[in-house]
Amino acid sequence: MHEIVGFLDMLGMVVFAISGALAAAERRLDILGFILFGTITGIGGGTIRDLLLQADEVFWFSDTRYLWVCILASVATWFVAHHLQSLRRVLLWADAIGLSVFSVIGAQKALIWEAPVLVAVGMGMMTASFGSLIRDSLLGQPPVLLEADIYVTAAALGALSYVGLTALAGLPGWDWVAGWAVPVSIGAAFLLRGSAILFNLQLPKYRPQH
Amino acid sequence: MHEIVGFLDMLGMVVFAISGALAAAERRLDILGFILFGTITGIGGGTIRDLLLQADEVFWFSDTRYLWVCILASVATWFVAHHLQSLRRVLLWADAIGLSVFSVIGAQKALIWEAPVLVAVGMGMMTASFGSLIRDSLLGQPPVLLEADIYVTAAALGALSYVGLTALAGLPGWDWVAGWAVPVSIGAAFLLRGSAILFNLQLPKYRPQH
Amino acid sequence: MHEIVGFLDMLGMVVFAISGALAAAERRLDILGFILFGTITGIGGGTIRDLLLQADEVFWFSDTRYLWVCILASVATWFVAHHLQSLRRVLLWADAIGLSVFSVIGAQKALIWEAPVLVAVGMGMMTASFGSLIRDSLLGQPPVLLEADIYVTAAALGALSYVGLTALAGLPGWDWVAGWAVPVSIGAAFLLRGSAILFNLQLPKYRPQH
Repeated sequence: MHEIVGFLDMLGMVVFAISGALAAAERRLDILGFILFGTITGIGGGTIRDLLLQADEVFWFSDTRYLWVCILASVATWFVAHHLQSLRRVLLWADAIGLSVFSVIGAQKALIWEAPVLVAVGMGMMTASFGSLIRDSLLGQPPVLLEADIYVTAAALGALSYVGLTALAGLPGWDWVAGWAVPVSIGAAFLLRGSAILFNLQLPKYRPQH
Repeated sequence: MHEIVGFLDMLGMVVFAISGALAAAERRLDILGFILFGTITGIGGGTIRDLLLQADEVFWFSDTRYLWVCILASVATWFVAHHLQSLRRVLLWADAIGLSVFSVIGAQKALIWEAPVLVAVGMGMMTASFGSLIRDSLLGQPPVLLEADIYVTAAALGALSYVGLTALAGLPGWDWVAGWAVPVSIGAAFLLRGSAILFNLQLPKYRPQH
Repeated sequence: MHEIVGFLDMLGMVVFAISGALAAAERRLDILGFILFGTITGIGGGTIRDLLLQADEVFWFSDTRYLWVCILASVATWFVAHHLQSLRRVLLWADAIGLSVFSVIGAQKALIWEAPVLVAVGMGMMTASFGSLIRDSLLGQPPVLLEADIYVTAAALGALSYVGLTALAGLPGWDWVAGWAVPVSIGAAFLLRGSAILFNLQLPKYRPQH
């Protein structure tokens, strides 16, 4: 189980790094621009989470595998970007995986640092979404996250489920829930985001009344 | 006195959260977008201040009332935004209160963390203005703060007054000033910003000479 | 030697502060806008570096000379901006000095905080480039850094050289290299960026294949 989460974690980072590198491709940057934006997008959300948690160190400081993964994914994108753009559909689904995993991992790390429930949910949402927010902000374009259907909402569901199940596992007789908290929460977020992609689900947008 | 400052502090946060949610309304976001931008705008300035001060924790970490206030204000804005837009004048004045209070509270917190005078003034200005800067930057629009009349300047006056009066209160025979530092500084910032709103005051803008 | 680095460090900060104030001039801001953007651009890169390193405090917290230098440079720009715009060429070269110095100082500070090699290189690149990234992002304009020729690349070379030479100096019989690490690395970054300016060198940009 632990290994699967570790694998999904890396997968999420790769996917976000690729999306950052693709944004660099649209801007016709050089290869260092690819690496810069790929890495920022891949590690951005988790970095802000760690700064806000005042964690001992940001997660990529000692374990440089995270940075290498982002760099390699960005360089690979440089060579295959013209294929990936026709693979947009694949990326959309891979991004849904990243979103689901990061929302749960973000909430989990916040609980480890003894954050209150509300803060843990917020950290999950933030870990899942701030990488792309920073990327778009630095590139001076409106954040795509705001246009996507049920994106932040799916991150909220993942984080909320994890926090809820973890609380439940603390009750007498319910400790067997603990082992299920991570996969069930990731699954819930993924199901919601996946349905939104498939069926074009949306929350109602604000409409000014005249 | 302490309770009034606490009340004004919450009021400032509510006002900034509403301004963030109104920005989300202009973008036709869904309700989670309202909450996201309302919360970022409400707590953004103080959060960056706490990170730069390397405070023990960011101010909303243990005391989740701040987050709840931002969330509630954002949700409320969702339902009444079409009224609030015609109440733009009210919001402008409420924003002036938030600006005044935050500039003084920011400087106060910096002094508590033993910041030098100049740093304390900068922290006051930052607490008052960075929430809206982050909001506009994430939304990809030019920061409104740069267009407003005497906005940063009023924050500077509030922070500067507080730091000056606090220094004065340290002199022998002037300790009675201590109790007045907060209200007088908030009042000074509010007076300046209020005059700017009423009389359209501006500092001279830079004009290129040909 | 140490004094020369300290001088170049201040020079780099002045140059970046001026470039921030010039961006404020293009926006026709008032003098506090000049100070705000000049200071953010001057200290931005190093501040993010210190936050990510979880350094004891951000570098301008106790030693306020950095802030004063940024403020003075911004105010001076207010008065002479119309000359500086015709001096764009001078600024371009001064900016190259700032870039070179900051990339090496950033890597050096990261090594002092025991960062792994890859992290140290990244910190050098970040210190040299994030000031202008933040400035452009807050002003809502696309980052100039992305358009400049071999900009991030030169920062990477400076940081990489410093880390490499420092590693070399740790080998038996090579300790005499230690004294040369800083000037050689700064020189390498400056040479590369300078050549790029003179000869319009570029890395190949990404080109979509149809």
